Amino acid sequence: MNSHTIELGHGGGGVQMNRLIREVFFAAFGNELLQREEDAAILSLPSGAQSTMAFTTDSFTVTPLIFNGGDIGKLAIAGTVNDLAMMGAKPQYLSCSFIIEEGLPLTTLKAVAQSMADELAISGAHIVCGDTKVVPRGCADQLFINTTGIGLVQKPGLSASNVAEGDAIIVSRDVGCHGATILMNREGLELGSALASDCATLWPVVEALIAADLDIHALRDATRGGLAAVVNEWAQAATVTIELNEAAIPVCDEVRGLCELYGMEPFQLANEGTFILALPAAQAEQALAIMKQFSPSANAAIIGRASHAEQQVGTVVLQTPWGSQRYLKVPPGELLPRIC
Amino acid sequence: MNSHTIELGHGGGGVQMNRLIREVFFAAFGNELLQREEDAAILSLPSGAQSTMAFTTDSFTVTPLIFNGGDIGKLAIAGTVNDLAMMGAKPQYLSCSFIIEEGLPLTTLKAVAQSMADELAISGAHIVCGDTKVVPRGCADQLFINTTGIGLVQKPGLSASNVAEGDAIIVSRDVGCHGATILMNREGLELGSALASDCATLWPVVEALIAADLDIHALRDATRGGLAAVVNEWAQAATVTIELNEAAIPVCDEVRGLCELYGMEPFQLANEGTFILALPAAQAEQALAIMKQFSPSANAAIIGRASHAEQQVGTVVLQTPWGSQRYLKVPPGELLPRIC
Repeated sequence: MNSHTIELGHGGGGVQMNRLIREVFFAAFGNELLQREEDAAILSLPSGAQSTMAFTTDSFTVTPLIFNGGDIGKLAIAGTVNDLAMMGAKPQYLSCSFIIEEGLPLTTLKAVAQSMADELAISGAHIVCGDTKVVPRGCADQLFINTTGIGLVQKPGLSASNVAEGDAIIVSRDVGCHGATILMNREGLELGSALASDCATLWPVVEALIAADLDIHALRDATRGGLAAVVNEWAQAATVTIELNEAAIPVCDEVRGLCELYGMEPFQLANEGTFILALPAAQAEQALAIMKQFSPSANAAIIGRASHAEQQVGTVVLQTPWGSQRYLKVPPGELLPRIC
Repeated sequence: MNSHTIELGHGGGGVQMNRLIREVFFAAFGNELLQREEDAAILSLPSGAQSTMAFTTDSFTVTPLIFNGGDIGKLAIAGTVNDLAMMGAKPQYLSCSFIIEEGLPLTTLKAVAQSMADELAISGAHIVCGDTKVVPRGCADQLFINTTGIGLVQKPGLSASNVAEGDAIIVSRDVGCHGATILMNREGLELGSALASDCATLWPVVEALIAADLDIHALRDATRGGLAAVVNEWAQAATVTIELNEAAIPVCDEVRGLCELYGMEPFQLANEGTFILALPAAQAEQALAIMKQFSPSANAAIIGRASHAEQQVGTVVLQTPWGSQRYLKVPPGELLPRIC
């Protein structure tokens, strides 16, 4: 390619776009299905037992494009793969669509494409179709990516509405790292620490949990709205009370410090590789032992339980370390725009 | 909803976003699968014979959002549905992801969502999962939409590489209307005419062609790069020569006039509801008769044939009305940014 930045012609459907697709996208994550370049990818699904699939979409607009622990490419793959995993589905096929602002350095696009390839390898999913649009300077901010995924359901029936009285609530790791990292990177803060986004592909640990044949009721990754959004949704969908022990919820010192500085609630900060799990309390220790074997969930913890306290059904109650109680609420609006 | 414009909080994953999703998107195109609101939609596929599916993605960045003959919502549905239809697949499930610039009038978003619902009704496809992001003012231009689609393949084997010597080449209608309309609307031109985008869902006519059991070799909608891009791709993929009769290619007066004014080639202008078909010449009249029964292809025409002229394999040769020949080329870069 002659130019060092993306030009409008790279999105024009002609010779220049074909070259970009080959030299950047096929070079990073090409495969036989993707490179057929028809109007749509043709997929053969296993017939019979595995004819139930999961389908999910996400657009990524994160800024900065590159942050401690990841970049928009890693995020776009992990985010969509995780949404499939949370429904008990093995990630299989992804589509990928780029909206690129004219002037984006080609090296940035190549680095993002390589991140995508690296992250895909963790779940074994493949990008099988794509789209590239280039918009004039000022009409978008650098790069937006949409990924849409198809997975084959291995464990049917996972649902927010299945959370039941007597379930243990487990979180896969300390919360708030992605939100805190984006805030830190955006404000140019240096905390003299190794604070990094939790951005990670969760399929390997979910696959192991499914293989252990546990009676999992619900799985959900705690993205926008954080832990608070997930447990509130569960409490309402399943008409239970969720009681969390505040002291048991892992939060690292850096996230805690940043939250104090900005007056934020770590439980409402976004995560990109952290999930919440509900299953009968009797199986909680077994689930925890499995989760601790995988690096993204090495510090998993049991943080509470689902009950049916008459007056509090549909709410989340935090037991504070001082013996008092407070409601954990969903953030009303936007804590931090363009977090993902 | 209290506010009349989109605010950052509408993309925050909290209460305000939930309300937007209900009052705008569910109100327009809600259905049982979409409204389950899990991390991914769970789809049951018919097992057995129809276990081959088509999968395609497109992001739409068109400006202006509303143009003669359509808007970004209609375009986003028709575009993705058409990509499935072109692979012989019945459009079934769509995902839909919005990137909205803070400040977009809510009435605009509602009108776009309603257009999407109206267009979905034509093919019977459903939106089953979605995503909403809001970016601060200046970080995007009003509204971008990604739609990704899954279809069940009814006619396997359609491919650019199957175009064969002796095939007739048919175009479904006059070419260039979408590109010319966007140009006209953007430049504020009034041609004193009814020039409108060809934007349309093509599944009904494709379904009828499939039902007639014709030996169709390839179908392709002539979007970015226009007719020229499709036939050049076919000539190269199938290693044939495509000979087109310039006088036989329908172009309306308004498109012809605008092309003369701007020095453009109508055969390179984008279309959004126009397709090209290749099948054995003996079946061309039968295909044409079927196509003429559907309004989007009422003025379909046979425009040429595939041959194997030794010196010209991989190229497209236009026979001009004056008896001379010229090559029809793919546009090198971008004729008109943000056409779709």
